[in-house]
Formats: sequence, structure tokens, C-alpha cells
Amino acid sequence: MEELLKALSQIGQLKDLPRAGWVREQVPHPESVADHSFRAMVLALVLAPQLGVDVGRVLRLLLVHDLAESDPTVGDITPFDGVAPEEKHRRESTAMERLCAALPGGEEVLNLWREYNDGTSAEASIAKQLDALEMALQATEYERRHGKELVGFLESAWRKIQHPLLVQILTALRS
Amino acid sequence: MEELLKALSQIGQLKDLPRAGWVREQVPHPESVADHSFRAMVLALVLAPQLGVDVGRVLRLLLVHDLAESDPTVGDITPFDGVAPEEKHRRESTAMERLCAALPGGEEVLNLWREYNDGTSAEASIAKQLDALEMALQATEYERRHGKELVGFLESAWRKIQHPLLVQILTALRS
Repeated sequence: MEELLKALSQIGQLKDLPRAGWVREQVPHPESVADHSFRAMVLALVLAPQLGVDVGRVLRLLLVHDLAESDPTVGDITPFDGVAPEEKHRRESTAMERLCAALPGGEEVLNLWREYNDGTSAEASIAKQLDALEMALQATEYERRHGKELVGFLESAWRKIQHPLLVQILTALRS
Repeated sequence: MEELLKALSQIGQLKDLPRAGWVREQVPHPESVADHSFRAMVLALVLAPQLGVDVGRVLRLLLVHDLAESDPTVGDITPFDGVAPEEKHRRESTAMERLCAALPGGEEVLNLWREYNDGTSAEASIAKQLDALEMALQATEYERRHGKELVGFLESAWRKIQHPLLVQILTALRS
């Protein structure tokens, strides 16, 4: 029980972990990793039924996709941190194995996290696109709110989003 | 499309809405409503399989349970705000009808929100108990981090939590 409570508190750290991309851009009071995951799931709930995928599975994938960042030895590693993608994956993978060992149903959580990272299932592909769309939405809101120029985040979203409906939303967002 | 983007941005306000209970207690940098919903869903993912309910449904109920608070005319109303429960429900219900009218699949979202508030289904009952357990977990963490006395939040959780496994976790949390 003590191990479970410790793991849940570790996951709670995602409430206090600001998304590193916004910190780098000096956005005032940026959202937390948990905030981002929450709205990505809202996108899944309202959009996934039109995307031809299992909504429940997309919700679960998005719920766990950033859990590794709750590990104090990992955090929110971005492409600007000079950590090679393989090393980032290795650190996150080790962190997830440790965290999931302390969770009931941890094996399912670990499998979901791996499915998201592999990105090969239809649901993982949509989850990754919704993750990018949520970032694009947030970048646009921060641009308007703070008069910032955050076009790099939009370009990153354009590279990831392929589903016609999500492309349409991304286009409308910037028009 | 414009209506959808506006609705998604409104929901994004939950990232910046601090939970009113912690504000009242002057907790420094309190979590957002979105933060709270996120970890309540983590609790559902790892605990609900042992609670004999449909995990996917509990996840959806928790994802939408606080969406009404994103409406600027509503916010996070607590028992200390002098708003009668019926009036709180009326305001939130009107806000949800307005928000869901702008969302694809909005009818499902509205039905989920009503199911949560009615609290009569097995899944809604468990969702409400997980909502309370998440608050108890957060109260305990804030007590330890800030040397605060937040026992009122724990008493409130004790009144709501009935499932033996969740009672066991709540007991362990305070031992």
C-alpha cells in the first residue's frame, strides 16, 4: 500500500511540472504536463468518434503517454535538451518500468505506454496526432494571450498531423 | 469549426482555474481543476479494475465531471461560497448545455455529465469516490509540503468514500 501511495504521489508531480517548451519560450505561468494530458483527452473524447478508432483506447494512451516525466530523474525532455532520442527513450522506459511495478494493473499501464511510443496501432497514431493538436491549440492561445511568436510549435504539429479532420482543425486554428 | 475551437479554448481555461478549496486555504501555487481531473483519471485506470465497474466509463465520467467550471459565469463553486446546491446545479447545467451544443458528440458529453451528477450508476458512484480520494491525496501532500492543516478535506472524503478498497487506501494515507 505504501508503494502505491508513493507512486500516486510521484504521478501527482505532473501537476507541478511545467511543459518545458513553454518554459524555454518564457511563457508566464505555463500549463503543467497534467494540464496538457487532460485537454488532449478532451480532444479524444469529442473528436475520436469521427476518426474511426477505439475512443476508450485513445483515452488510455493519452492518460499514460507522459507518465514517465513524473520520475525526478527524467522530467520533460525536449529536442532542445541535447539528449539523443534513444537515450530519452531509455531513461523514460526505465522510469516507467519502475513506476508500473508499484501500480496495481501496472502491466497494462506499461503496455499502453509502449503502444503509444511504438506508434504503430491506429489508436496510438491518433493519440500522437491529438497530442500535437493540443500543443498547437495551446501555442495559439499563448500567442494571443501573451503576444508571443510560437510558430515552431505549429510547424512541429503540421509535421505530425495527417488525419484529414485534424488537418482541417489545425488549418482553421491559424486562419 | 469556429464554435468548436472556442469551446476547446473554454475547456482549456480549466488549466488556469485553481481549485477553490486550496485557494481558500492559501495553499501556494495550488493545482488547477484540469490537474485534479487528470490524477482522478489515473486513479480510475489503476484502481477501477479491482472495483467491479466499467473502467472506460469511469474514465469518461471523470474527464467531464468538472467541465462546467470552465464557463466564466460558473467557476469552481464550493460549499463556502454561499451558493445553494440547487442554484449551483442550475448554473452548471446551463453552462454544460451551452458548451455541449458547440462540441461534436456533445450529447454524449452532456449525458456523461448528468450521469456523474445523478450519481446513481455504479460507475458514477465510483467516479465520485475517486474524485474524493484524489482530493484526500492532494490534501495530504499539501499538508506535508506546506505544513498546513487541511483536515476538513479529509473529513469530506471520509463522508463520500464507501468502497472497502478505497476506504483501505484512505486509511493508509493517514497512517
